Amino acid sequence: MRIEHDLLGELEIEDNAYYGIHTVRALQNFHITGIPIHKELVEALVTIKKAAAITNRNIKSLDENVAEAIILACDEILAGAFRDQFVVDCMQGGAGTSANMNVNEVIANRAIEHLGGKKGDYHLIHPLDHVNMHQSTNDVFPTAVRIAAIRLLKPVTESFANLQTALQEKEEAFSRIIKAGRTQLQDAVPVTLGQEFGAWAQAISRDRWRLYKAEERLRQVNIGGTAIGTGLNAPRSYIFTMIERLRDLTGISLARTDYMMDPTQNCDVFVEVSGLLKTAAVNLSKIANDLRLLSSGPYTGIGEITLPPVQAGSSIMPGKINPVIPEAVNQAAFQIMANDMAITLAAMSGQLELNAFLPVLSKNLFEALDILKNILPLFTERCIEGIVANADVCRQNLDNSTVMLTALTNYIGYDKATEAALLLKETGKSIKEIIIENNWMDEKLLDDLLRPERLTSPSSNKEGK
Amino acid sequence: MRIEHDLLGELEIEDNAYYGIHTVRALQNFHITGIPIHKELVEALVTIKKAAAITNRNIKSLDENVAEAIILACDEILAGAFRDQFVVDCMQGGAGTSANMNVNEVIANRAIEHLGGKKGDYHLIHPLDHVNMHQSTNDVFPTAVRIAAIRLLKPVTESFANLQTALQEKEEAFSRIIKAGRTQLQDAVPVTLGQEFGAWAQAISRDRWRLYKAEERLRQVNIGGTAIGTGLNAPRSYIFTMIERLRDLTGISLARTDYMMDPTQNCDVFVEVSGLLKTAAVNLSKIANDLRLLSSGPYTGIGEITLPPVQAGSSIMPGKINPVIPEAVNQAAFQIMANDMAITLAAMSGQLELNAFLPVLSKNLFEALDILKNILPLFTERCIEGIVANADVCRQNLDNSTVMLTALTNYIGYDKATEAALLLKETGKSIKEIIIENNWMDEKLLDDLLRPERLTSPSSNKEGK
Amino acid sequence: MRIEHDLLGELEIEDNAYYGIHTVRALQNFHITGIPIHKELVEALVTIKKAAAITNRNIKSLDENVAEAIILACDEILAGAFRDQFVVDCMQGGAGTSANMNVNEVIANRAIEHLGGKKGDYHLIHPLDHVNMHQSTNDVFPTAVRIAAIRLLKPVTESFANLQTALQEKEEAFSRIIKAGRTQLQDAVPVTLGQEFGAWAQAISRDRWRLYKAEERLRQVNIGGTAIGTGLNAPRSYIFTMIERLRDLTGISLARTDYMMDPTQNCDVFVEVSGLLKTAAVNLSKIANDLRLLSSGPYTGIGEITLPPVQAGSSIMPGKINPVIPEAVNQAAFQIMANDMAITLAAMSGQLELNAFLPVLSKNLFEALDILKNILPLFTERCIEGIVANADVCRQNLDNSTVMLTALTNYIGYDKATEAALLLKETGKSIKEIIIENNWMDEKLLDDLLRPERLTSPSSNKEGK
Amino acid sequence: MRIEHDLLGELEIEDNAYYGIHTVRALQNFHITGIPIHKELVEALVTIKKAAAITNRNIKSLDENVAEAIILACDEILAGAFRDQFVVDCMQGGAGTSANMNVNEVIANRAIEHLGGKKGDYHLIHPLDHVNMHQSTNDVFPTAVRIAAIRLLKPVTESFANLQTALQEKEEAFSRIIKAGRTQLQDAVPVTLGQEFGAWAQAISRDRWRLYKAEERLRQVNIGGTAIGTGLNAPRSYIFTMIERLRDLTGISLARTDYMMDPTQNCDVFVEVSGLLKTAAVNLSKIANDLRLLSSGPYTGIGEITLPPVQAGSSIMPGKINPVIPEAVNQAAFQIMANDMAITLAAMSGQLELNAFLPVLSKNLFEALDILKNILPLFTERCIEGIVANADVCRQNLDNSTVMLTALTNYIGYDKATEAALLLKETGKSIKEIIIENNWMDEKLLDDLLRPERLTSPSSNKEGK
Repeated sequence: MRIEHDLLGELEIEDNAYYGIHTVRALQNFHITGIPIHKELVEALVTIKKAAAITNRNIKSLDENVAEAIILACDEILAGAFRDQFVVDCMQGGAGTSANMNVNEVIANRAIEHLGGKKGDYHLIHPLDHVNMHQSTNDVFPTAVRIAAIRLLKPVTESFANLQTALQEKEEAFSRIIKAGRTQLQDAVPVTLGQEFGAWAQAISRDRWRLYKAEERLRQVNIGGTAIGTGLNAPRSYIFTMIERLRDLTGISLARTDYMMDPTQNCDVFVEVSGLLKTAAVNLSKIANDLRLLSSGPYTGIGEITLPPVQAGSSIMPGKINPVIPEAVNQAAFQIMANDMAITLAAMSGQLELNAFLPVLSKNLFEALDILKNILPLFTERCIEGIVANADVCRQNLDNSTVMLTALTNYIGYDKATEAALLLKETGKSIKEIIIENNWMDEKLLDDLLRPERLTSPSSNKEGK
Repeated sequence: MRIEHDLLGELEIEDNAYYGIHTVRALQNFHITGIPIHKELVEALVTIKKAAAITNRNIKSLDENVAEAIILACDEILAGAFRDQFVVDCMQGGAGTSANMNVNEVIANRAIEHLGGKKGDYHLIHPLDHVNMHQSTNDVFPTAVRIAAIRLLKPVTESFANLQTALQEKEEAFSRIIKAGRTQLQDAVPVTLGQEFGAWAQAISRDRWRLYKAEERLRQVNIGGTAIGTGLNAPRSYIFTMIERLRDLTGISLARTDYMMDPTQNCDVFVEVSGLLKTAAVNLSKIANDLRLLSSGPYTGIGEITLPPVQAGSSIMPGKINPVIPEAVNQAAFQIMANDMAITLAAMSGQLELNAFLPVLSKNLFEALDILKNILPLFTERCIEGIVANADVCRQNLDNSTVMLTALTNYIGYDKATEAALLLKETGKSIKEIIIENNWMDEKLLDDLLRPERLTSPSSNKEGK
Repeated sequence: MRIEHDLLGELEIEDNAYYGIHTVRALQNFHITGIPIHKELVEALVTIKKAAAITNRNIKSLDENVAEAIILACDEILAGAFRDQFVVDCMQGGAGTSANMNVNEVIANRAIEHLGGKKGDYHLIHPLDHVNMHQSTNDVFPTAVRIAAIRLLKPVTESFANLQTALQEKEEAFSRIIKAGRTQLQDAVPVTLGQEFGAWAQAISRDRWRLYKAEERLRQVNIGGTAIGTGLNAPRSYIFTMIERLRDLTGISLARTDYMMDPTQNCDVFVEVSGLLKTAAVNLSKIANDLRLLSSGPYTGIGEITLPPVQAGSSIMPGKINPVIPEAVNQAAFQIMANDMAITLAAMSGQLELNAFLPVLSKNLFEALDILKNILPLFTERCIEGIVANADVCRQNLDNSTVMLTALTNYIGYDKATEAALLLKETGKSIKEIIIENNWMDEKLLDDLLRPERLTSPSSNKEGK
Repeated sequence: MRIEHDLLGELEIEDNAYYGIHTVRALQNFHITGIPIHKELVEALVTIKKAAAITNRNIKSLDENVAEAIILACDEILAGAFRDQFVVDCMQGGAGTSANMNVNEVIANRAIEHLGGKKGDYHLIHPLDHVNMHQSTNDVFPTAVRIAAIRLLKPVTESFANLQTALQEKEEAFSRIIKAGRTQLQDAVPVTLGQEFGAWAQAISRDRWRLYKAEERLRQVNIGGTAIGTGLNAPRSYIFTMIERLRDLTGISLARTDYMMDPTQNCDVFVEVSGLLKTAAVNLSKIANDLRLLSSGPYTGIGEITLPPVQAGSSIMPGKINPVIPEAVNQAAFQIMANDMAITLAAMSGQLELNAFLPVLSKNLFEALDILKNILPLFTERCIEGIVANADVCRQNLDNSTVMLTALTNYIGYDKATEAALLLKETGKSIKEIIIENNWMDEKLLDDLLRPERLTSPSSNKEGK
């Protein structure tokens, strides 16, 4: 055990703990969710500490050997070491101070070891004076949240691209399978199964684009703004070069905002981005619902498609297969929508020079991004790519219905169309049989009009007349 | 009374009613909110009908005199006539069919009068065959909602620009008023009152830009797609020229989407736009909260600013003035956030080829836009522009606090800063008195360090060292 | 025009306006939604004013003739007069002060006329000194919101009872119609159509009970608490008897809360009640979704029931009928869920001795109640009561499926059940044909096992073995 | 490695894994949140399995030795063993099937070992035929969620009681500290600090009561209903005695619902309970906000109370202490509100005989309960109990303000009260000095009127006149 001190007194710290008294206080104060701060957030925070150490060394604010020890400690953590030392709860009071201090302390104590000291020898390297030099939680934490969000966003965007591709491949594959369209769940005019996949792909392509653009919103950071964004106590040379180091180390085109007070207190960019995630969730949920509808059955439902079976569905009903992947997608969508609410509430509750609620905001943002990152490949690979069309069912449903009659109204008129509908119901015959038997049209024209491409696209100009 | 017929039978219609049987059915079915469809939605629907009549005349689908009568009726309505005839409830089942039919019927009956007929003489001009020619509710209604939304969005964007300007004028006016910053409601480092207004202006400038760009999202329309977006029964010549007419008549750069099935069933663009309105609401709410905090008092609160009084505040406490405009802004923000939820729920509930819930979606979108359109000028003109700074209170708060000591730590060290903080509390003297009495710094340097611009911006490089 | 004065100066008021300067200020400040305060809220406020006038007369605080004039004015308004005089926007800053003042002014000016004076002769009867005597907006408005909410709640509770009855009548009527159950939209074990209506009725019966109990939550009022609930300046004799008058006049078992500061600042009871409305919305939405699913088709969907047609569905597809009433129910549910969010946001934003956001809270609460009050009878009478079972389709779906095989597994074993499922698919024969042809069971036992009541209830003990 | 089979084929399972092929499929399908099903849910599921084994043994459906092995395995797990074997993701498609199968498999394989077999020897004890006997996921999972929720609810209710007690102790302790009240953040009439704590305690006492009653809602379970609630394939003797076993083993007064189809498909009770958690969150958030306001400063805010310091607040501003516990409470409240939305979305999305989205619903319900369980003791012990009143600041704020003048208006009239307010502002003297100097009242009466209890309670009857 070692003893550490803070404003409130002293505490015993376990010898093997790289974190220090501020972290232990936070553990006592914030045992709330049991989930520590996100791995990507830790990486972003450590990357900022490394960039600051480099910058402060370059502007001669930090001694060479101290800076090197800090940088080395950061590199070790970024390579995967000491990850069990980042222990503070993701839901914490204090605007991220505890997360920042946890990182400061672990780096300091590891760097101290590099200088030959023992953990707690803060006269060698101090968590605040050295690791946190020219920083404040209030510029470090919002910057780290943005970096982590960008990193989590990238695979999400790529996964949307893959989902779009998978949908478009089915659009192509099913482009000749004609079937009944449905509006308000009631029989409507014909459509191809491919077109249905195409309409979903359109929505997903917008999501892909929106999230691609969302990254731009997150690139403006307030690092250098210190406590409230005025930059008090940070030298200009630090401010101007720190952002370059950070850009190098992250490989992200970060930019220092012109008005550093702004991102210190305003969280609207997160609400904007979360709104886009929620928009994507709306599309995913709609597609998942449609897939579950179209694959309903196998006997008593619509059954126009079959989803790839991925697990047995029931213990009591032998052979039952359920649409579990779309159901998981629905649930992911619900969660993302809910998280958007937490993000909104946190963002609107900022006061004056700071938003103290960024921890819960970032918890919900990261969870939403993680869920999307995980669910999208499952959706693409374990569901969409394996979907099989039941072309016979599609054709049967269409033939048994009156929906193709709409296409004939321009030729036989509403009255005969209505009569045909009646006969269809009474006799169980097909539309073609009825039309031909009654001599209402010649077979060639009828066949032409009932061609799939004719039924599922606009009329030529002549017909429109 | 006249008699009209539909699928279900016949109904008596009041003689002076321009609407017909479909509208009366809708009145019976949907007495829900008591609020009819929005004025802008009526205008958009009528504009589409006019554009369709022109187009159908041009492609020879519609007789000249029928087309002219329809166009004339539309022009009358657009000029403000017959507005009491658009009576169907804004919350209606049926994906907007009732709204579309209400408009078709009113136009038809008025156009019939222009041809010398009597209301109900649908053999002259038929609501469906003529007014609705080559259209379906499912392309007309989503297109109209987009047009109406764009029109409501324009004044909102302008109002955000005015709000930004008002905030920036105060930023300038209060740029020399130095005061204590506050993070987590606790005293933090100094800031100017102007900077606080500047930080708010930054957030509002983003809202302005976002909503300006949001218009683009809404410009892609599915007119010509008919029932499910395949364009069945609509001639290509109609589809290609209709969009041009609509662009002319609305003055909006509308574009026909490449994939008309997409906007027929997908409502994600509305969720995206509503998400931006919600983001704006977050910023407005944060600013309103801050204004109420800073103007709290007058005796027992912070009292650093005074809001312009706009009405007496209390019947029981003489002379009380309350921050009623910011309170209204908060409430508007709550409403917009709630409406975003309705929009999200409606959008995610679309099924297959159509979203049947566009009526409730549009009700909530239009209400949010209306509220913003109304509240922003009130906020700008009745609150922000009239705000007075209480420079003395700002200065006093600052002088009575220890927040300026942070700026001296680089010179006198943490220990003396802490001692000064203690003396400040015990003696009630000012920082300057204490520093000078103790000979800790010379007066000239002290005065320089405590200059507002020094306290509220980064250090020069030398100091940072 | 007459001139009136307030803290801020003077204004011209139209001669025929019964409201005065405070109302006009509010009109200028709060042109936001364009919707005035709710009719029921006006009635509740006026009832409170009447009760206060009676009470103050009884305790000799108010002269007899002044009190009588006020009471008379209140009675006129309660009988329906002067309703166009209550003009302030439902979304207003100031915790309801403007609504309270609007009511005070209209009553005062009408009472002045009863005393022979002219509008504005406030020396005769003063809106504050007399009409508002011993009151504050902060006890009057929260009390009025509760009274109005209780009054709006009553018909809602009754309508839920009627809906429950209608569902249970169908439960009875359809109790012999056996059909395939569905879990996760996949074929499951058999159920009767009646049981499905019964399960919905169970949920609705809970809603009915919850809302019946919700009234109790709203009965605790803070009238007499004046500005912050301490009752400052209100005599005890007024406080103790005022509640009795109010109980008499409203016919509601109101109770004065023990701790009047509590309802002055805490709005959690509204969140609780709104949470119950949201719960009801969840049930309504689920039932509406199920109805739309079961009635989907008529040719290409499930089609096990037919909803009563209430209007033509499509202009382009002849004969199409859509489930517009359930769609309206879905939309109503979305709105109620959204309003719950506004109510939650408003309630959580109260500060210290008052919640300033009660106006937007009450707007959303009243809208939710109004929508329920209107939609429930439509749902019951225009949808549920007219539902027709398609027993043939139910039977066909069942016979074509494998879902009845589960009931035979205890007798023929999983292997033969699986073989039967295969044969069912290949041959298109019925289960019975296959079982009998293969001599797997004797016909009598089979018929017994496939009886509807056997298929849709637990096994006798012997079979379970 | 061992090989296991299912509908889809075979998979290799690690030798030391107690779970089997269904669990492995679920791991492949649902890598979504990375968080396994909740510990309490596992316990509830295992308890149900134990109860079923006992029941099935008693009704002779299960051989004695098989039953005993299953019971023994359950007891081991309930005692804490094998907890790392419950690995399926909390967010899973399939209505909880994977969670149920994970539990069935672990129990079966452990029970097999007790019978001397090796994992995978399902001919000895089968996960479905024996462990899941007479059960379906669709009755087991909803029942388990209710049991787990009740268990998580109990400590929450107790914690609300403790919070209420802590608030009431402060109500008592601060009952003589008079201070200015504030409405709309503007100075209002006097109040005692104790009364403010009392008003919070009132709200919390309602939460306590509501959540205590909420347990009743959760006690109705559908165990015995099997696949859709009709009880198909479950013998009546099992159904009737199973609930008794479950009551014994859980110690909870569970009741079998009369209509087992109802809880199989309807999730409204969870929405109701979550609505109550959200209501509690609203109260907690309001109290946390008030505490942060009243403790704002120390120099530039209201500063009427001091929260106990629990950690250092800032790296850059020496000595700063922030209200981190209330900030954590705010964030917990945001999360609970967000989770309520996920619960609502999941509940409204159930279809026909089942709600497939119970996994995400339960994830959010359990998280909300966990957060409350953790945050409430922190709030009570690390914040409320240690709050110190700054009586001098309270008195000073009051004396410097005009809020006590309201109490004198009945004696000196509005005009002199207004004059006094003016003098107060100009001279900086106290109210008493001004009143006495001007001879407006005699000192004895004045002192009496300004007594705390007079200022913070209703007038005697005489004064009201």
